[in-house]
Amino acid sequence: MSRFWSPIVHSLIPYVAGEQPTTGGITKLNTNESPYGPSPLALEAISKAASDTLRLYPDPTARELRMAIAESFGLDKDEVFVGNGSDEVLAHTFQALLNHEEPLLFPDITYSFYLTYCRLYGITFRQVPVEAEMRVRLDDYRQPCGAIILPNPNAPTGIGLPLADIESLLKAHPDQVVVIDEAYVDFGGESAVSLVRSYPNLLVIQTLSKSRGLAGLRVGFAVGQRPLIEALERVKDSFNSYPLDRLAQAGAVAAWKDRDWFERHRAMIIASRERLAAALAELGFHVLPSSANFLFARHPSRPGAELAAELRSRNILVRRFSAERIDDFLRISIGTDEECDRLVAALGEILH
Amino acid sequence: MSRFWSPIVHSLIPYVAGEQPTTGGITKLNTNESPYGPSPLALEAISKAASDTLRLYPDPTARELRMAIAESFGLDKDEVFVGNGSDEVLAHTFQALLNHEEPLLFPDITYSFYLTYCRLYGITFRQVPVEAEMRVRLDDYRQPCGAIILPNPNAPTGIGLPLADIESLLKAHPDQVVVIDEAYVDFGGESAVSLVRSYPNLLVIQTLSKSRGLAGLRVGFAVGQRPLIEALERVKDSFNSYPLDRLAQAGAVAAWKDRDWFERHRAMIIASRERLAAALAELGFHVLPSSANFLFARHPSRPGAELAAELRSRNILVRRFSAERIDDFLRISIGTDEECDRLVAALGEILH
Repeated sequence: MSRFWSPIVHSLIPYVAGEQPTTGGITKLNTNESPYGPSPLALEAISKAASDTLRLYPDPTARELRMAIAESFGLDKDEVFVGNGSDEVLAHTFQALLNHEEPLLFPDITYSFYLTYCRLYGITFRQVPVEAEMRVRLDDYRQPCGAIILPNPNAPTGIGLPLADIESLLKAHPDQVVVIDEAYVDFGGESAVSLVRSYPNLLVIQTLSKSRGLAGLRVGFAVGQRPLIEALERVKDSFNSYPLDRLAQAGAVAAWKDRDWFERHRAMIIASRERLAAALAELGFHVLPSSANFLFARHPSRPGAELAAELRSRNILVRRFSAERIDDFLRISIGTDEECDRLVAALGEILH
Repeated sequence: MSRFWSPIVHSLIPYVAGEQPTTGGITKLNTNESPYGPSPLALEAISKAASDTLRLYPDPTARELRMAIAESFGLDKDEVFVGNGSDEVLAHTFQALLNHEEPLLFPDITYSFYLTYCRLYGITFRQVPVEAEMRVRLDDYRQPCGAIILPNPNAPTGIGLPLADIESLLKAHPDQVVVIDEAYVDFGGESAVSLVRSYPNLLVIQTLSKSRGLAGLRVGFAVGQRPLIEALERVKDSFNSYPLDRLAQAGAVAAWKDRDWFERHRAMIIASRERLAAALAELGFHVLPSSANFLFARHPSRPGAELAAELRSRNILVRRFSAERIDDFLRISIGTDEECDRLVAALGEILH
């Protein structure tokens, strides 16, 4: 607290990111990174961009990257907005599109940054409880509201929503923006990007952090019809003209275009996920059905905090949230099969 | 305009950045970039960081970079805040520290992004007119206010303020935050960083874009006592956990530590500036005294718009602002001597 602070600072609830260890020897299954380094073409493009041209500002509109993304979806580049990780894209979205008189709706169990953004921008919101089995029930969203944001698949549960249900939601709210946050969609979810041209109220957000193995590069994007994208551009150009540096733009373009790398590695991660889910079930865990690159699992007889601490003492990091209803769950990022085996072995030891 | 927009979006005044041409053959003296590529050590560090580790999130606190900056100033790393270019640092500063009941004060002729930030965050402000010769008169800031922000040297004039005057201002406003925006200080200004330990109300903002030749990497920072830095951290952690990607952190650390490169190149730019100022005076221009890596100059008999257009047609870009009082000035970034000579030759032709 300080007399120098703007009043808003006192009421913020800063987001707490998962631990980023600085020492080696850690099996890191806590922040949903890809276990595989990015496309070699991305690394090559970055090395090439690490030149004297770094003295020049980057393209403030990231034209080439927006074109690459747009083309792959059959959209126009002006229907794509890019930012410094999907968190920045989300932040601008909350400010530009989700602040209305009626409350913003989102699930009570979801990405906890949503609550943080509401505080930051003074947005009225209502959290809609998920069902007992942690499913988002879209019928519960048929109520007056200013806007809706849903992750699909949801985090940290990993549970996906059928595209038909999302389309019904879009139809039920023609005058409200519906944001579908698809950070994890590439691991088995159904993307709503195909609905963008049909629904002016739809904004879809994705990231290169997970399925492109580029969490360290900070590139995310949104797709939607012009009025929604224009709102994001207006806020972005009132905040930071050049959010994506030259290296990030170059690396992201190359990574996006390497479709082979993408298909191969997401298939590997999905296969490892199914393998790990079976092994955890074998150990007695209740594992939620996941369409993401992580599993959300709870053991019927051992508290989540205890399991997480035991794993930590064995140099294995998983994420645990202290919120009610989910405090006994572990959120386990999918690593290589070898990393997953290490986790299963450690849990076997702990549970024995 | 769209029914989907949050109300704030309608009232924004997005900042318009200088042109970033995509074709070659242009003499680019319009956005105050360094004419010299960055330290080779920075490029080397970036290439080394372009590896499989990009799959992992960057250090959200950019610890190593903050330590490097802090050490060079004799400060603690917790007195340093880093962001995605000094524009992001400024944006967070406006939201975290400059939004009070009484108006924020800044010069009427200054970095036009300040006005944009005030709109974005709904900040009450009062613009204090600069003197006829474009000088900031600090006596005019002795009035009730919520906070003060001043660039030193000022942009786009390039005129610097003596450190003693800034210290008087800090003493006159012990209960208000005073932000000194030192984007251009390394080209002859007097930095207020030396006052940070003595004044809890002082925040100093700098960037690696200009004097480190890294506009394309997007790294800026603020230094101040803990309560001010803590406010920035709270806003940043409510906005984007990882604003600086792995490559930017690695490159910035190496660039910051290469003191030799820095000293050599800023001396070259200062020498080129003095040479160009003399040549422009020779052509009849009124050139303001600059402590920055640009000159602000006006010809007594030729409108600025005309000169800028004539230069543009000769593939030379300079910046012109359409605001009253300065619309006949050209803001000319300092290039290499060769680029400056090209500009002088073109102006000679145009004025003939």
